[in-house]
Amino acid sequence: MEGCKMKMKKLINDPFAVTTELVEGFVLANKDKVRRLEGINVVIRSDMPRKGKVGIVIGGGSGHEPLFLEFIGKGMGDCSVHGNIFASPSADIIYDGIKATDSGSGVILIYGNYMGDIINFDMAQDMARSDGIRVETVRVWDDVASAPPDQKDERRGTAADLFVIKIAGAAAEQGLPFDEVLRIAEKARDNCRSIGVALSSCTLPAVGKPIFEIGDDEMMVGMGLHGEPGIKKAELLSADKTTEIMADVILGDDLDLQKGDEIAVIVNGYGSTTRMEMFIVNRRFHQLMTSGGIDIYGTYLGNFCTSQEMAGLSITVMKLDDELKKYYDEPAQSYSFTVSGE
Amino acid sequence: MEGCKMKMKKLINDPFAVTTELVEGFVLANKDKVRRLEGINVVIRSDMPRKGKVGIVIGGGSGHEPLFLEFIGKGMGDCSVHGNIFASPSADIIYDGIKATDSGSGVILIYGNYMGDIINFDMAQDMARSDGIRVETVRVWDDVASAPPDQKDERRGTAADLFVIKIAGAAAEQGLPFDEVLRIAEKARDNCRSIGVALSSCTLPAVGKPIFEIGDDEMMVGMGLHGEPGIKKAELLSADKTTEIMADVILGDDLDLQKGDEIAVIVNGYGSTTRMEMFIVNRRFHQLMTSGGIDIYGTYLGNFCTSQEMAGLSITVMKLDDELKKYYDEPAQSYSFTVSGE
Repeated sequence: MEGCKMKMKKLINDPFAVTTELVEGFVLANKDKVRRLEGINVVIRSDMPRKGKVGIVIGGGSGHEPLFLEFIGKGMGDCSVHGNIFASPSADIIYDGIKATDSGSGVILIYGNYMGDIINFDMAQDMARSDGIRVETVRVWDDVASAPPDQKDERRGTAADLFVIKIAGAAAEQGLPFDEVLRIAEKARDNCRSIGVALSSCTLPAVGKPIFEIGDDEMMVGMGLHGEPGIKKAELLSADKTTEIMADVILGDDLDLQKGDEIAVIVNGYGSTTRMEMFIVNRRFHQLMTSGGIDIYGTYLGNFCTSQEMAGLSITVMKLDDELKKYYDEPAQSYSFTVSGE
Repeated sequence: MEGCKMKMKKLINDPFAVTTELVEGFVLANKDKVRRLEGINVVIRSDMPRKGKVGIVIGGGSGHEPLFLEFIGKGMGDCSVHGNIFASPSADIIYDGIKATDSGSGVILIYGNYMGDIINFDMAQDMARSDGIRVETVRVWDDVASAPPDQKDERRGTAADLFVIKIAGAAAEQGLPFDEVLRIAEKARDNCRSIGVALSSCTLPAVGKPIFEIGDDEMMVGMGLHGEPGIKKAELLSADKTTEIMADVILGDDLDLQKGDEIAVIVNGYGSTTRMEMFIVNRRFHQLMTSGGIDIYGTYLGNFCTSQEMAGLSITVMKLDDELKKYYDEPAQSYSFTVSGE
């Protein structure tokens, strides 16, 4: 049997209303901390804009929850802007998000490096600049499977979004000037690499069937979050062997990790991946790094950057220096991602 | 086609080693906060035991992560004890957990109301009492689908575990005396009701095929976390209609919610449920409660109490009073569940 052709089973209402309804449900769950901009799928921290603070606007297609929707809060993003499932938000609502977020100190846009998002975020950036708002962009491009190191700016953005938002959010929360927040966000981005494996497809609410096929005994190494082709189809291997392949791909890139280097790690599930599997992969990845003399400073593990109910996971590493460690350690308080700072 | 007979696709190694490997992976991800007791699947906070603090030992079968494994930390449990997938931990390791946790102030055991767990936790309790350790038990029995209100102590424990651990953990963290922590934990337990719907089965690593069948157009109302039969098989409905059925079941129980009452809510995914679906259900549940004059004080939403990659979700309500609100608001810092306290 080639893959699983099960009919879509999702608890939804109108497939074309899912984004609006999920945003409403999020705001109701978190109503003391965020508010929705009237009539559009843009959510902003209730305590923003704040005089003197650089604004962080994040966003992209929905369907990847908790990314981006829920990654706003103290020490994280300030405003999240949502398109339909897997579709960029329109330039208009991004522009509304920028205007609502700017306190006069400027706004940094952080999003994944996808063509639709680039077009619309760039347009919104131009519109806001015409109003005299300072706006710069940090596109996240961490997926090493999607282009070679010398074409880094063509790589897709995946779970490193979380690291970049967390580091930039911490720097902005501390009241750093615009250029400093931008520099630190870009450094975080440039120090991240990710690789994923998919075990199943996802089903989009408005489509109702899997967006690609994987055989029962196969996995897809380097698969993108929207079904973009990976490096190769491979036989489904053990967790340990799969982790070894993923570690090889990351270490084989141009991050140039040396003995004694410190990294932070995200083990990110794509949606239906159990934490059991993530912990088993994390175990092997820690063993591999430790035996290679690389020190793991901290580990985030969870379904952060998902692709609906896709099975599989990705590993992201961020190479740390003293400056990145400082912002890594700062508290963060978003609905689904929190760092206590203790 | 009756359900989906897809072959198991999980990133694991030896199916019989999953519990040990996932516990190891968890400790590596959280190594500054917890340690594992040598050679057994028992994890304890690094800062425990602490003189004068009542100990909270939690546990049960693994496979429900983040429950119970990850719910230890400041303001939560102190020690978690794990059996194999869906199987009770042995009395021996529960006893080891109790001994490691007791500071002389006694230990409260919190776990779900399942026969295997009752036998082994009771045995461990007796062993510890023979050593002169004060031990009492709070079994969680929130699943209204599993027995009528007059046989509450035969109900299964589900996502209310999170509320009971959180409330008891907060009370213990503040240094309250044993009897007070016990009373407050029991009150939290007695004020919780849950109901779930399953859309798919889960697959156990050592079994390799779904543990029950659900048709493509069906859902199971009241399904247990281990495939225990529900109230009824029903046609798969919209998120709103499903939420209305769930709300009716909870409100129809003996919690006796009145206009003006305050509740806390958990929208809990069973594993492969998207946050999109949970937010859409949360939206409707908030609408229903608000229109009934019931105030939602706070909402936890996520895959907390899972059944491997089962699809579906449950709703838990905890009726609040001023005392429960106080402990609900206290900070909590576990690896996968955090309350900032701000």
